[in-house]
Amino acid sequence: MPTAPAIKLRVFSLNCWGIRYFSQHCSERYEMIGQLLKEEEHDLVLLQEVWSENDYLFLKKTLAHSHPYTHYFKSGVIGSGLAVFSKHKILDTFLYRYSINGYPYMAHHGDWFGGKAVGMVILDICDLTIHAYVTHLHAEYCREKDAYLPHRVVQAWELLHFVRHTSSGADLVILGGDLNMHPRDLGTRLLLAYTGLRDSYAEAEKFEGCEEGITLIAENPFINKKELEPFENGIRIDYILFKDLSRVSVKCESLSTTTGSVPGKPFPYSDHEALSAVLLLRSEEGGVARPQRCSAEPDPGLVDMVNEARTEVKVGLHSAERMRGTVARMGMMGLALLLVELVIALVPWLAHSTEHAFPRASFYLLGALSFATLLLTALLYILYSTQVKTLQGAEDQMRLAVTGLQERLQKHSQTQPVEQGRVQGEPTSTPANSP
Amino acid sequence: MPTAPAIKLRVFSLNCWGIRYFSQHCSERYEMIGQLLKEEEHDLVLLQEVWSENDYLFLKKTLAHSHPYTHYFKSGVIGSGLAVFSKHKILDTFLYRYSINGYPYMAHHGDWFGGKAVGMVILDICDLTIHAYVTHLHAEYCREKDAYLPHRVVQAWELLHFVRHTSSGADLVILGGDLNMHPRDLGTRLLLAYTGLRDSYAEAEKFEGCEEGITLIAENPFINKKELEPFENGIRIDYILFKDLSRVSVKCESLSTTTGSVPGKPFPYSDHEALSAVLLLRSEEGGVARPQRCSAEPDPGLVDMVNEARTEVKVGLHSAERMRGTVARMGMMGLALLLVELVIALVPWLAHSTEHAFPRASFYLLGALSFATLLLTALLYILYSTQVKTLQGAEDQMRLAVTGLQERLQKHSQTQPVEQGRVQGEPTSTPANSP
Repeated sequence: MPTAPAIKLRVFSLNCWGIRYFSQHCSERYEMIGQLLKEEEHDLVLLQEVWSENDYLFLKKTLAHSHPYTHYFKSGVIGSGLAVFSKHKILDTFLYRYSINGYPYMAHHGDWFGGKAVGMVILDICDLTIHAYVTHLHAEYCREKDAYLPHRVVQAWELLHFVRHTSSGADLVILGGDLNMHPRDLGTRLLLAYTGLRDSYAEAEKFEGCEEGITLIAENPFINKKELEPFENGIRIDYILFKDLSRVSVKCESLSTTTGSVPGKPFPYSDHEALSAVLLLRSEEGGVARPQRCSAEPDPGLVDMVNEARTEVKVGLHSAERMRGTVARMGMMGLALLLVELVIALVPWLAHSTEHAFPRASFYLLGALSFATLLLTALLYILYSTQVKTLQGAEDQMRLAVTGLQERLQKHSQTQPVEQGRVQGEPTSTPANSP
Repeated sequence: MPTAPAIKLRVFSLNCWGIRYFSQHCSERYEMIGQLLKEEEHDLVLLQEVWSENDYLFLKKTLAHSHPYTHYFKSGVIGSGLAVFSKHKILDTFLYRYSINGYPYMAHHGDWFGGKAVGMVILDICDLTIHAYVTHLHAEYCREKDAYLPHRVVQAWELLHFVRHTSSGADLVILGGDLNMHPRDLGTRLLLAYTGLRDSYAEAEKFEGCEEGITLIAENPFINKKELEPFENGIRIDYILFKDLSRVSVKCESLSTTTGSVPGKPFPYSDHEALSAVLLLRSEEGGVARPQRCSAEPDPGLVDMVNEARTEVKVGLHSAERMRGTVARMGMMGLALLLVELVIALVPWLAHSTEHAFPRASFYLLGALSFATLLLTALLYILYSTQVKTLQGAEDQMRLAVTGLQERLQKHSQTQPVEQGRVQGEPTSTPANSP
């Protein structure tokens, strides 16, 4: 098949750690980031944690000539923090907000207020349609006892489905961002296996930067080394992933990371390291762009992975249901207290007495307490009910996926009766989507 | 081009009005609906307002033989109310929750609690990939003073983008549901113009049912005739839409609606009328399935439509910003009151006196009041901030769309210098996506 000359595409991704009045040296760092991007002139810049719109506008102004096309994704209370800068025209954008994203009362973690999401921009580069995704998943605050694991698994699940369903018309798919997941974590494995996205760290012909491609490194002065334990050197949680569809072939020429310090500057760009990938695109003339959704042989390991994800989601579901039960009981207690109060208030009135049997101050305090309990438990009940629905929905979808995969594997093993091996899980005789 | 024999596809859509303990004759109506679907054996059944999972399970049991494949979309506090029953295998599902959907404090309207969304199911019928969507948009409670219009416009905008971006790999797209919009309403026009979906009522070769295809009719005993005014006979707000992509051609052989009563039964299936469409599919051998995203000539009327939508979104944005300002001021008052309380409490303590200068009961009551004000305004502030972000995001996206459309029209008019006409709006010299 004849091939056209290669197109070089330079992609950049960085979690900017841009919490105004909290992140250290925030405005100085944005100046450094702006300077870097202006000089480097990457084709596509995918930023996360640009929490303040003013900082986005500063970058937009700085990059007005080098990156005339830009989009800032708005979501949640504060914003999604996601921003894209491009040398090439942005034709279209679309945002998917993750349906589950922590708890509003964990205000010190702040993820809930950020409205975590995945943003898509569609670019046309040399007549190739490129779908670029930028995302930021819920943070992991404690690896040993990670209360947010089911949330992150559902987010990864929604992310992979969003990419799968919105990339059919693309020639090239690029995903960059802070996944808050290690390379061997369930969510990362699911994402790669399901979408066919390839990890630029694993694929790069040349790599320069931190050992093992880590992006949260112990040497970074903004990092609390204790939080990295037991990973002494650091962890890899930021990624640039890519995938070619049939009209184009792509390879990763090189990947580099920053290494915790910037020459001539007293501090690094962020608490995360930045990633820069060089992709080489070769458009294949005569290639047909139709995605091969169901014809490809399924990966037998996928069934295990989805089952593992289902287990995590079930853990989250039980926890949400338990919490909902607890707040329901608390709400009932609040209601009972309010009724007792009412009776106390009514007794002197019924007895035509002007004297209160109960100390007035305590009476009002108790009333306020029971009312506050009722209000708070009602709000929490709504929150947990929404989470229960979301987790149930994810679990339903995963069960459907497992059954579908098993059927495809069974069909495949009937045609190639050797190597059946790893398939496990539920029997396939029940309808695919019975609840 | 040679054509294969036609495939007949029968599609059904109904808003079931399934609010347990509120909707009249709910369980009897579900029995009637189940019986109808079992007998009629449509290929695809798209239901809305199946609010209770128990009612869904009842239908699932009733239709176990006629429609072995089914999916119930879970969302929000109560659920999305969306259910799909199919004679053909459901390969995949995906749910998109609308980012704006009324207000939680409008509990009597209930839309917020429903978590309105659009659900997609992917079916494989005779080797054709069919993407079917079911949705239910925010209700219109008062057409003259419709406070939810910006919300519904944003929902329609998100719906059309979801359909556009997720249907590239499909051979046939079907969308059924209660759009809560009249045929000439902005949202309906936008949806049809942007996605290329065709209205089965307008396209049907044979139509049988209510005059003008209305689906909310005055004769329906569950309908309050006053709410239909000034539309004496009724309104059309339920639709079955469809679109073929290049591997298949489709036409609507017939469309029918129920007419407010069911022979031999004392009441109709629902407060809405049901729609049944018969689609004739002809797969075109050798057809290429690649979507023609940007090559087609844009409709000049689209620019006007998107600008109209932007105006509506801006109205919503101003209203949300105004409300956020109001609750912020109320919050400040609550805080001030709390501070005054603190001072009152501190005065006797500072004066080493055991006597309260202020009546104790009023003191506690005022304290409780200021605390409740603070809490309530904080919650409302979060709500309105989220809505502001969402509406800003939609407006940004619409501006990008207008500029893109204008550029495409300009290019087109340069090649065909006649007929420029209707283009209006902003100048195109600014970058497409400047905020």
